[in-house]
Amino acid sequence: MILPSNRLSDVKEYYFSKKLREISVLEKQGKSILNIAIGSPDLPPPPQIINTLNTAALDTKANKYQSYQGLPELRQAMADFYKTNFNVVLDSENEVLPLMGSKEGIMHISLAFLNAGDKVLIPNPGYPTYTSVTKLLHATPVFYNLSDTNNWQPDLEALEKQDLTDVKLMWLNYPHMPTGAKASKSIFNDLINFAKKHKILLVNDNPYAFILNPNPTSILCFPEAKEVALELNSLSKTFNMPGWRVGMVLGNKKYIDAVLQVKSNMDSGMYYAIQKSAIEALKSTDNWFTHLNNIYRERRKIVWQIMDALQCTYKKDSVGLFVWGKVPQGTNAEALTDSLLAKKNIFVTPGFIFGSQGNSYIRISLCESETILKTALKRLL
Amino acid sequence: MILPSNRLSDVKEYYFSKKLREISVLEKQGKSILNIAIGSPDLPPPPQIINTLNTAALDTKANKYQSYQGLPELRQAMADFYKTNFNVVLDSENEVLPLMGSKEGIMHISLAFLNAGDKVLIPNPGYPTYTSVTKLLHATPVFYNLSDTNNWQPDLEALEKQDLTDVKLMWLNYPHMPTGAKASKSIFNDLINFAKKHKILLVNDNPYAFILNPNPTSILCFPEAKEVALELNSLSKTFNMPGWRVGMVLGNKKYIDAVLQVKSNMDSGMYYAIQKSAIEALKSTDNWFTHLNNIYRERRKIVWQIMDALQCTYKKDSVGLFVWGKVPQGTNAEALTDSLLAKKNIFVTPGFIFGSQGNSYIRISLCESETILKTALKRLL
Repeated sequence: MILPSNRLSDVKEYYFSKKLREISVLEKQGKSILNIAIGSPDLPPPPQIINTLNTAALDTKANKYQSYQGLPELRQAMADFYKTNFNVVLDSENEVLPLMGSKEGIMHISLAFLNAGDKVLIPNPGYPTYTSVTKLLHATPVFYNLSDTNNWQPDLEALEKQDLTDVKLMWLNYPHMPTGAKASKSIFNDLINFAKKHKILLVNDNPYAFILNPNPTSILCFPEAKEVALELNSLSKTFNMPGWRVGMVLGNKKYIDAVLQVKSNMDSGMYYAIQKSAIEALKSTDNWFTHLNNIYRERRKIVWQIMDALQCTYKKDSVGLFVWGKVPQGTNAEALTDSLLAKKNIFVTPGFIFGSQGNSYIRISLCESETILKTALKRLL
Repeated sequence: MILPSNRLSDVKEYYFSKKLREISVLEKQGKSILNIAIGSPDLPPPPQIINTLNTAALDTKANKYQSYQGLPELRQAMADFYKTNFNVVLDSENEVLPLMGSKEGIMHISLAFLNAGDKVLIPNPGYPTYTSVTKLLHATPVFYNLSDTNNWQPDLEALEKQDLTDVKLMWLNYPHMPTGAKASKSIFNDLINFAKKHKILLVNDNPYAFILNPNPTSILCFPEAKEVALELNSLSKTFNMPGWRVGMVLGNKKYIDAVLQVKSNMDSGMYYAIQKSAIEALKSTDNWFTHLNNIYRERRKIVWQIMDALQCTYKKDSVGLFVWGKVPQGTNAEALTDSLLAKKNIFVTPGFIFGSQGNSYIRISLCESETILKTALKRLL
């Protein structure tokens, strides 16, 4: 047999992939597992997009290869969405690139900017894909610690004291997953100055902006952001379309061009009818967000009660699709999640999978119905 | 500004991307350009798939994240397709991985198997993406020449004389694009022995198998292929679904697992309703292929006349979506295509874009209607 590349040796199987196999075995044994661990929105997307999909699929050009840059009207809809919701002005021709989900953007951006050996600042805790993509490209993850005492904001003083030679890229993710922390008022400004000083490309991954967040913002709102920052966004959480794979990267033409150069050499434009549906979704009005957040707000109340039942502490002003709870002193969070699965048939996420700074935490998703969440609560009382 | 990675410096803008901008300028000047250069199927896909798409989009699970491995029933449909059409038996659980187009598979496979510095055997002429992906990963393309005198088959004797140290992967593409050559009777067997001897992973890219080809075959038909070979396939040409982005990689579980490890770290499963439509398409019977090839056969007759008008020579037994013509001695093929565009408003592909062995050739696509092809012919007579 021919051996895989060295790059695979560092990248482990995703925790959920292994755990979901375990759960499937339990279910085959007849157990009724309540999975409240995963952030895959269960609610339907804006209803009009299904008609749009059906109509667009009949268009004769729908079946043909699409442009790597996506339809001009999709790029315009993305630019309009940023203007309406963040008051950020973007040139739809040059500063917006549709992606097949923002996850692929993590690889595209990394390929576009990282040489082997470059260092990448990655939040701990944080989304594991930043790390695995970095390792796949033989670049080096350098974790920056976030902690509760600092409201999960980067400690720029500490970073300034580090050796920043060879740091090429810094992943940001505000609103932050898994903690639900928002960017503090000054942090994006400070980060932009930090990045300019050290010639580091900032990428803010912003898919949770509109979930239970009274003040959505974008790093591109801040002065001179376009000099050093890109932003990733996605329709997955905002419009309940994770399975449709629609994301975008936004920022300076020079950076977008580099990402496009990678993208055009490794994939193609997304399906025409999906692009048309995405345009419809992006036109949703405030009513959509109100409707969505009313549901998540009610669910969150029950999740708070679950956290109370587990004697976990949490912040009521955090945002996004999850509640992040600190386990009581002396409790091992991973052991707690294992025991919840084994004894109560409830699957929640242990915080360690997001990095060592998540060791004392668990994460519960708002992507299950009130009925399921209440059933979970009852099992704990 | 932060500079892009070194990997981008070697990868040029795609020829068509530049040329299509030129054409768009000409069209704005009022010229009616006949584009008979590009292989994007214009015919509709099997009609039943649109209903399938519409129905599947209404399924509540359609909007959620899908498995990286795709739906079990899609993998089964792909395995069944290989059994029916190639008599190749594949375990749908372990030996089939759906992709968002086979193009992304070129990157996924390269990430899974190549270390920086590894060498990759690439056909000249051949699909330019093999080269650009190789370069993006700091691996080294080593071109193997194909030529008309040898029916565009790899010259294994010549290869055996080369230094094959560090060669990790070899791209094959039979039926071959751009030449339309089929694999000779013995070549896959010989290649499998060659690959076993030198521990090289073979990847046969097989999207043209069913176009004007009386005897579709797969490298996986051959004994011991699974030890050293993967195959890429796609619904783009077979079912006129290029824009839908549905491809697959097939072969040994160990190799598929490595590709899956890459894929799961950089993208997600494809849209549920597209998967369901793909299943429908894969169930098409022989009537579908007969219908499709009847149309292409008529178009090819006109393209042959175009080649005759240009005094180009071509093989009548070649297969696939293109006719590959050798320009008359003393004619520069690129100059010919430039002059056809400037003077006759006809865009055909110069062969040099596929490598130096294509320098004396032009390529014309069968993806335009008889009306358009006849209009092009008239402009030349």
